[in-house]
Amino acid sequence: MTTQQATEKLAPDLAERMNAWWRAANFLSVGQIYLLDNPLLREKLTLAHVKPRLLGHWGTTPGLNFIYVHLNRLIRQTDASVLFIAGPGHGAPGVVASTYLEGTYSELYPDVSQDEEGLAKLFRQFSFPGGIPSHAAPETPGSIHEGGELGYSLSHAYGAVLDNPELIVACVVGDGEAETGPLATSWHGNKFLNPANDGAVLPILHLNGYKIANPTVLARIPHEELKALFEGYGYAPIFVEGEEPEPMHQAMAAALDEAYAAIRANQKAAREGMEERPRWPMIILRSPKGWTGPKTVDGKKAEGFWRSHQVPFSDMSKPEHLTLLEDWLKSYRPEELFDEAGRLRADLLALSPEGDRRMSANPHANGGVLRRPLRLPDFADYAVAVPQPGGVELESTFVMGTFLRDVMKENDASRNFRVFGPDETASNRLQALFEVTDRAWDAERFSYDDHLARDGRVMEMLSEHMCQGWLEGYLLTGRHGLFSCYEAFIHIVDSMFNQHAKWLKSSREVEWRRPISSLNYLLTSHVWRQDHNGFSHQDPGFIDHVVNKKADIVRVYLPPDANTLLCVTDHCLRSWNRVNVIVAGKQPAPQWLDIDAAIRHCAQGIGIWEWASTDGDGEPDVVLACAGDVPTLETLAAADLLRDFFPELKVRVINVVDLMTLQPHSEHPHGLSDTDFDALFTRDKPVIFAYHGYPWLIHRLAYRRTNHDNMHVRGYVEEGSTTTPFDMVVRNRLDRFHLVIDVLDRVPALASKVHARQALRDKLNEHSRYIRAHGVDLPEVREWKWSGSK
Amino acid sequence: MTTQQATEKLAPDLAERMNAWWRAANFLSVGQIYLLDNPLLREKLTLAHVKPRLLGHWGTTPGLNFIYVHLNRLIRQTDASVLFIAGPGHGAPGVVASTYLEGTYSELYPDVSQDEEGLAKLFRQFSFPGGIPSHAAPETPGSIHEGGELGYSLSHAYGAVLDNPELIVACVVGDGEAETGPLATSWHGNKFLNPANDGAVLPILHLNGYKIANPTVLARIPHEELKALFEGYGYAPIFVEGEEPEPMHQAMAAALDEAYAAIRANQKAAREGMEERPRWPMIILRSPKGWTGPKTVDGKKAEGFWRSHQVPFSDMSKPEHLTLLEDWLKSYRPEELFDEAGRLRADLLALSPEGDRRMSANPHANGGVLRRPLRLPDFADYAVAVPQPGGVELESTFVMGTFLRDVMKENDASRNFRVFGPDETASNRLQALFEVTDRAWDAERFSYDDHLARDGRVMEMLSEHMCQGWLEGYLLTGRHGLFSCYEAFIHIVDSMFNQHAKWLKSSREVEWRRPISSLNYLLTSHVWRQDHNGFSHQDPGFIDHVVNKKADIVRVYLPPDANTLLCVTDHCLRSWNRVNVIVAGKQPAPQWLDIDAAIRHCAQGIGIWEWASTDGDGEPDVVLACAGDVPTLETLAAADLLRDFFPELKVRVINVVDLMTLQPHSEHPHGLSDTDFDALFTRDKPVIFAYHGYPWLIHRLAYRRTNHDNMHVRGYVEEGSTTTPFDMVVRNRLDRFHLVIDVLDRVPALASKVHARQALRDKLNEHSRYIRAHGVDLPEVREWKWSGSK
Repeated sequence: MTTQQATEKLAPDLAERMNAWWRAANFLSVGQIYLLDNPLLREKLTLAHVKPRLLGHWGTTPGLNFIYVHLNRLIRQTDASVLFIAGPGHGAPGVVASTYLEGTYSELYPDVSQDEEGLAKLFRQFSFPGGIPSHAAPETPGSIHEGGELGYSLSHAYGAVLDNPELIVACVVGDGEAETGPLATSWHGNKFLNPANDGAVLPILHLNGYKIANPTVLARIPHEELKALFEGYGYAPIFVEGEEPEPMHQAMAAALDEAYAAIRANQKAAREGMEERPRWPMIILRSPKGWTGPKTVDGKKAEGFWRSHQVPFSDMSKPEHLTLLEDWLKSYRPEELFDEAGRLRADLLALSPEGDRRMSANPHANGGVLRRPLRLPDFADYAVAVPQPGGVELESTFVMGTFLRDVMKENDASRNFRVFGPDETASNRLQALFEVTDRAWDAERFSYDDHLARDGRVMEMLSEHMCQGWLEGYLLTGRHGLFSCYEAFIHIVDSMFNQHAKWLKSSREVEWRRPISSLNYLLTSHVWRQDHNGFSHQDPGFIDHVVNKKADIVRVYLPPDANTLLCVTDHCLRSWNRVNVIVAGKQPAPQWLDIDAAIRHCAQGIGIWEWASTDGDGEPDVVLACAGDVPTLETLAAADLLRDFFPELKVRVINVVDLMTLQPHSEHPHGLSDTDFDALFTRDKPVIFAYHGYPWLIHRLAYRRTNHDNMHVRGYVEEGSTTTPFDMVVRNRLDRFHLVIDVLDRVPALASKVHARQALRDKLNEHSRYIRAHGVDLPEVREWKWSGSK
Repeated sequence: MTTQQATEKLAPDLAERMNAWWRAANFLSVGQIYLLDNPLLREKLTLAHVKPRLLGHWGTTPGLNFIYVHLNRLIRQTDASVLFIAGPGHGAPGVVASTYLEGTYSELYPDVSQDEEGLAKLFRQFSFPGGIPSHAAPETPGSIHEGGELGYSLSHAYGAVLDNPELIVACVVGDGEAETGPLATSWHGNKFLNPANDGAVLPILHLNGYKIANPTVLARIPHEELKALFEGYGYAPIFVEGEEPEPMHQAMAAALDEAYAAIRANQKAAREGMEERPRWPMIILRSPKGWTGPKTVDGKKAEGFWRSHQVPFSDMSKPEHLTLLEDWLKSYRPEELFDEAGRLRADLLALSPEGDRRMSANPHANGGVLRRPLRLPDFADYAVAVPQPGGVELESTFVMGTFLRDVMKENDASRNFRVFGPDETASNRLQALFEVTDRAWDAERFSYDDHLARDGRVMEMLSEHMCQGWLEGYLLTGRHGLFSCYEAFIHIVDSMFNQHAKWLKSSREVEWRRPISSLNYLLTSHVWRQDHNGFSHQDPGFIDHVVNKKADIVRVYLPPDANTLLCVTDHCLRSWNRVNVIVAGKQPAPQWLDIDAAIRHCAQGIGIWEWASTDGDGEPDVVLACAGDVPTLETLAAADLLRDFFPELKVRVINVVDLMTLQPHSEHPHGLSDTDFDALFTRDKPVIFAYHGYPWLIHRLAYRRTNHDNMHVRGYVEEGSTTTPFDMVVRNRLDRFHLVIDVLDRVPALASKVHARQALRDKLNEHSRYIRAHGVDLPEVREWKWSGSK
């Protein structure tokens, strides 16, 4: 497509009106960045009309406005349901201007009305205290994507269209964002899309050539390389390049018509049975940065250069800058665009689609409106029989998988549940899912492939970024999901978690946003069982990262066995507007609670395990607390040892499922009251706390508690290697022997038990010698059973 | 290149010997995974010879061995200096086998000798307690890259060749790894390489088709798409595809010769003045997963399928598996490969390069050997004159930039210092660097470009992953650098930091590894000054993430002004084997310490600011502590207010530069002794601590200190928006007024000061009204000056 060929696409009148709409959007964008008052320039512009602090980004804005008006034309012509994602950072002046022009903004924020007064408010609120941010955000109508941290627009887009066969997501990818890793791999999303049952993504790569102070890579490679790159990614790129508005309007209209036709043709073919992966269209729009802005500022190149990135000129003490601003604003001829009252001219208003067809009012962008709760089978039906604690060994996540399988089956008709993970669903023992669905795959398939299918509902790509981005896009458009990941590598998406948690917090402050399903993580293959992998795979710090976010948003669960895992999973799948982190092992491990006990325990989130305690109804001599499956095992083994060594010692065993119970109630809604906490942990007895992760997190949560000074926490202290499971806990002093030594060190009555201490030290030495000789753990450790189950 | 065309590349004898070497490497790889003893199969294989726990990854290994022997042939033929990076996870059986065959392994680990006994040790130690991990690691000779978390091989490779004009890094990229975001963008590293002064990267994309349980994307797209993708990335791909060893040897040899010739031709042209970016060669090697392994296991496809990913069969209780293992091992005909003593046949040994030319002995892979300290100008020469505290305002990072400029200049001849950052060097006020160098750029350049040059030493790409990967590769090969980043977005590389910190910890335990330069972060554009950006750009949690790693490795500095920043920067650039995090603002801010005071303060890392305190030599009534530039400003303003309100009150002001001083000395080498801590913070007086980041971190560091229960910490609590600088601190209650209220709440003598409290509340209300009306902070806040500087 060249601009030449396309000159007849739009009738002159329509082209003219679209250009006027674009001028209006650009005018409103500049106004938001610069003006405090005098929104229609009906008075001579003075410094008093200009904001005292000029903040915002002009560079990407005119391009976004250009794309917006063209998408509106396409929607009006085809009645397509289109969602708009503005990938470029700081595109808010444009997105807000366009959503205002089509009326949605004023419907949601009546104060920002369709008149001169509303215009003044629109301008004033932008990047102003108490106002709105300079990038698309939860406050922005039609947005499911914050243009703050870059890299996730396209994975959000691909997540949004899953199971939305009629939806098209027009995803503008900035050429800055395109340099990020997450974005660079997300082009491959087209190999995981089912054209028969999913919608389509139309990527619009916007080459405006510059980042903050640099050119962009993709704008500075030859045309043939650029074309090859995107053909290699599996797309059919359509180029729209230039800077003269008239031919650019014609070219863009032609490009969109061509792309739309290709999308519908691909979908039709697939829906009629065609099996091959289609070549999806994309648009490469090359237009000047800061298009229609000042050509030069202070004699230096501005339009089409990085100097247009933010505010092209901001030192308003120079009188010539005030003139430049007024000339720039007037170049859009606002008097032709807005009527006397300050309302957009009716024939321009008519360019917008109507009602829900406006991209800013598309219900998919406020996913909570469309969200229906999952149909959940009774999780108790999947319970493991546990006749006595520790009497059964099995893989907890396998049991969870059987529940997830039936969640998948129960919701098959509504197609609103998917499971995500980087090639690890089976490795994480969730393979029961493959009894009812497959892995989504639309690249080449062979007869011997294992559970690969176009309409698979398990999304696996070796990119945690992609899994997270897909899931966020899926949730934000009103569906449900779960992301299972190796614990250490979930840090790859630390910053994506941050942004999603911030989105959720801000959303709660936006009245018209409806709650969306929680983002659920299952972290498995955790720090304590890295038999194949070693030190590089050992990091339990995601929990520490998560708890820095607002208490309203985050939950952390450490179910010690399969039945508690079932209970927690059910709870998380029912919740909304949260991030739930579940940590659970995938290796065979002893089971402690039957389903009734599990339900009771999870309802409290924390509790005394009386069957493992020897303190009766009185005060214990020592509290053994634990959180996490491996620490629970070691704690119970320590309790067993203590019973053998010191039958008189009164030991209380506490297990924590819901980590947030440890925080003060004033800090977290799940936090125990101080009275309840003291009743559990005592006010003055030693507490030996075996924790799954970095030990100081327990101190950070509990430092205000009465008995905090007596809490001694064991956890992962960055000691690890490729070794046996028991050696891992020994290296970090979380093992049963060290825990008992800790008790000896802290219970005054035991201070003199020199023999016991020596016996424990001997045992640790025996362990070291044994694993070096045999490569496996001591038989007595491997075969240990809780005394109650013997 | 097709296998057909290349049949004559290798003389038959050479091809035969290379294949024998490959068989030997494969044999040793299988041996490492399976065998405990009987390494040369000189006895009938029994279960007693097999490891009790079978751990390891076979799938990628034969491909790595194949590439290794071919690179050796190329090195012998050309005498090139080649470094080997094994991107695929868990490639250790192969890399270790190859480095053993060329003798390096036994030189570094004499116990693992070149004889039958050494072979038994080699096998036994693999994935065995006290042994070595299953992926390339610091223990692995010749490695600068841990094949644990995937995605960083190619950015490491590009970092390693910078300023090493003769070096070639042969970088094997697994097709699993190729799906990650960081890897997908790192192909663009070729646009930042200077062919005249940097070395070359030869990427070898190894398509073995499968991940853990899935095919890979790049192995399942048509040949034409694959070719287009890499041509689009700017490479000239050479394909080597097949599974029959003989033609594959011929094809691989031809491909390597072709690639090598292209590299040298590109370099020659550039070094003779050619300006255009060359098209660099790469190799796409398509070979079966688990090549030469069992075709089927238990009737199921194994070779060429994902079932070969780890241990192809591990249930050794089945007698047929023992037979299968023996047959497999014997298929390599070890009796033809090793002599009576168990040493590789001499004519095969002769295939390895000699001395430092062995990839496993290349000194670049043990960068500390090559590392020379930086020439550093005296940082005091860049000091800001501070006649009285608070008397001068300027941008601290700008001052740091002038120092970095001269560090760059002083080391220009040795070409061993670079600065990295995602398009933010100037935005972060380090623009003085551009007085002496440019941004590296080998894509298209235009006359109006700003400081872009092929030989620029500032590396900017909008990918934090790429910046981090480049820098790691640069440091690991013995050079120096600094990464400047927006504070919030450094979380993008949380997991890369993890892996690097783990690498450093493990390296310290490897006797032959020499120390490398520290990885230095400058985090700026920090949480408190996001005027353009708002909530999504506010996250100070990287510090929390960092302090979870081993105390030996991590340091965190919060210099409050320019002179302390200079002092800290100098210190960090001199250090080794650490990760240093420096947090400092880029906005104009008051300066507190002259250079002599700054040097004294930084030497202690923490100290009383007597000029700001009113406690004389006695005990204070209250301690105001602060860490970070904005908290320091607010603390001093609070001290000023307290002096006005309560002239009798004895206030002590403590500033913390080195955060690790707060930890107990037993936990961190920089930690203060309890005596020193108590002398500063008192044993019982209220402490109001204004901290840059999440407040609970201070509690986590200081919870064991005597006076901890009286410490009240203010910091960032996830409250933010697009607003004024002062409103940001108000929203998080870190502002001067809230700090004074905190003092009122905690100093018993002030409990009755109702008027003061009301005056402060009034002030906060006035602030709110004022910013909403004017969009800027109260004049008295904007114009506040420390009383000593008035």
